[in-house]
Amino acid sequence: MSKKIIRIGHGSGGRLSRELIEEIFLKHFQNPMLEDLSDSARIQLGAEHISFTTDSYVIDPVFFPGGDIGQLAVSGTVNDLCVSGAIPKYLSTGFIIEEGFPVNDLIQITKSMAREADEAGIKIVAGDTKVVRRGQCDKIFINTSGVGIVPEGREHLKNQDSIKVGDKIIITGTLGDHAIAILSARENLLLDEEILSDATPLVSMTEKVLHNPADVRFMRDITRGGLATVLVETCHKRSYGIRISEKEIPTKKSVRAVCELYGFDPLYLANEGKIMMVVNPDKAELMIKTLKQHRLGKHASIAGEITDKHPGKVVMRSIVGGQRIVEMLSGEMLPRIC
Amino acid sequence: MSKKIIRIGHGSGGRLSRELIEEIFLKHFQNPMLEDLSDSARIQLGAEHISFTTDSYVIDPVFFPGGDIGQLAVSGTVNDLCVSGAIPKYLSTGFIIEEGFPVNDLIQITKSMAREADEAGIKIVAGDTKVVRRGQCDKIFINTSGVGIVPEGREHLKNQDSIKVGDKIIITGTLGDHAIAILSARENLLLDEEILSDATPLVSMTEKVLHNPADVRFMRDITRGGLATVLVETCHKRSYGIRISEKEIPTKKSVRAVCELYGFDPLYLANEGKIMMVVNPDKAELMIKTLKQHRLGKHASIAGEITDKHPGKVVMRSIVGGQRIVEMLSGEMLPRIC
Repeated sequence: MSKKIIRIGHGSGGRLSRELIEEIFLKHFQNPMLEDLSDSARIQLGAEHISFTTDSYVIDPVFFPGGDIGQLAVSGTVNDLCVSGAIPKYLSTGFIIEEGFPVNDLIQITKSMAREADEAGIKIVAGDTKVVRRGQCDKIFINTSGVGIVPEGREHLKNQDSIKVGDKIIITGTLGDHAIAILSARENLLLDEEILSDATPLVSMTEKVLHNPADVRFMRDITRGGLATVLVETCHKRSYGIRISEKEIPTKKSVRAVCELYGFDPLYLANEGKIMMVVNPDKAELMIKTLKQHRLGKHASIAGEITDKHPGKVVMRSIVGGQRIVEMLSGEMLPRIC
Repeated sequence: MSKKIIRIGHGSGGRLSRELIEEIFLKHFQNPMLEDLSDSARIQLGAEHISFTTDSYVIDPVFFPGGDIGQLAVSGTVNDLCVSGAIPKYLSTGFIIEEGFPVNDLIQITKSMAREADEAGIKIVAGDTKVVRRGQCDKIFINTSGVGIVPEGREHLKNQDSIKVGDKIIITGTLGDHAIAILSARENLLLDEEILSDATPLVSMTEKVLHNPADVRFMRDITRGGLATVLVETCHKRSYGIRISEKEIPTKKSVRAVCELYGFDPLYLANEGKIMMVVNPDKAELMIKTLKQHRLGKHASIAGEITDKHPGKVVMRSIVGGQRIVEMLSGEMLPRIC
């Protein structure tokens, strides 16, 4: 790498993160499981197909509209398991805490974790706690790692290989709620309508659409880097491209208003309760119906499709009618968003 | 908890850590797997018995005599799997990096991780990287979580239930090397003989003694909190106690010298390459022979035994002949030792 120091963008989930992974981690940790560059690894343990995933959460502030770091740390890792086709089973949790952190805040975070784990049907079975001196970490960081079992018929969800030209792109709900909730907490924004983080485990929703697993070709939770980054990663170096329509991408009016104020693009905003799915086009409408019946999928929308017109590229038709190529996030809009 | 803020001792691995676990985490994350209070959880995934463990590494300095944080992060988690009877299989790694951290240092750490993983036969399959602003973390923190398969006949190693009165206590090598290596780096100590950290994966050594797994009743790696804490945890609330002999506890002369200077007790010092084993008394001598043939077990020693004389207590006969009750570490001698 030509850059000699780690920069904020290396943790963005976007282009610089990808460089870091490819030029350092993949190079030294070489193995086929890591090369998928997916958030979760598909591993074999004896006779079982297992999904194994890890994430560290460094969000600031620790408590924010609609949630806290504990809720996020369980939801985020559970959702990585869900989108890989796994049924979440067990979670580990590693706390790094700054000396002086209030015990009552830790109790509240722990309660949130227990509640979300219960909602997701996952058990917290292993843990570790480190405490560092004041100023050596900012309040609290939490790592969660999760394992889940991949049922038969869902093996294909580990990567993009099942995606076909003509498949439809579904977005399960409004984009940007999590990022704007964090921003509004940091900046003390007074909004007409309070925006809450969408951080929540999505397993009950994904299980509904996995009734016929073959109809879902691929899923990815839309977190750091936003929808743009997820879409670019989905077709990167593939023989197909993605066409999306800005009009069909669900966003709340209040989120759009804040985006205009700050010059943000909802396509790049982080979410913690939304999924991008590539699905069988013949079943897309039925899936939207199924999703809309679930409390977490009310704003689900068919936002685009897989095309052979521009392989490896994401092209968006804007509301006013023009077309533009959508790139991955480069740099970082909001550090410590998760 | 009566204390309203988190203190350094809550991360010591000793008494305050135990209070934190019992009064907050166990209370809210209730489940039988966590209640073992072991560093690793025994879980069932389909037909397989799996060990699942997590640890965050916050050691300071990041590079130290005999190793670095990457070597430690792989060794520590691999060793938690080993002592639970598992064969280490897959590892995840979560980096939290301070903006400005040198890329070359990250490369060196990554290489160490790859080398140790290779030595341990474990594959690094999943990862995550977060970057925080300068001053929001101290250089680099690494979480590793590991899974391993527990072969048939080793299920009993998950807890202390197989320990019998009369069983022997084996220490696999000299105590305190890791802690004193870190101390000497921090304090720029000039020692006659440089002390190196013992951080290393122990799987090749533990596999040798697990030839007849039933002869090993219980194992624990002697990390934070030192041998004292491991022994107290081993007999805590049990119908047996532990008797050890100070004379039989292996320590290097140079480590003892630093301990005298600083008023430290080797019993409480952290190690990253030593194990306490409880073994069948009829096989103890044979095991010592086996251990001594391995490069990591040259100083193995039978240091004590299980007794019914003082249930739940650890009693040490000192070199000068007196006896004292050994308590768990309370407070913290050397923060950020791992």
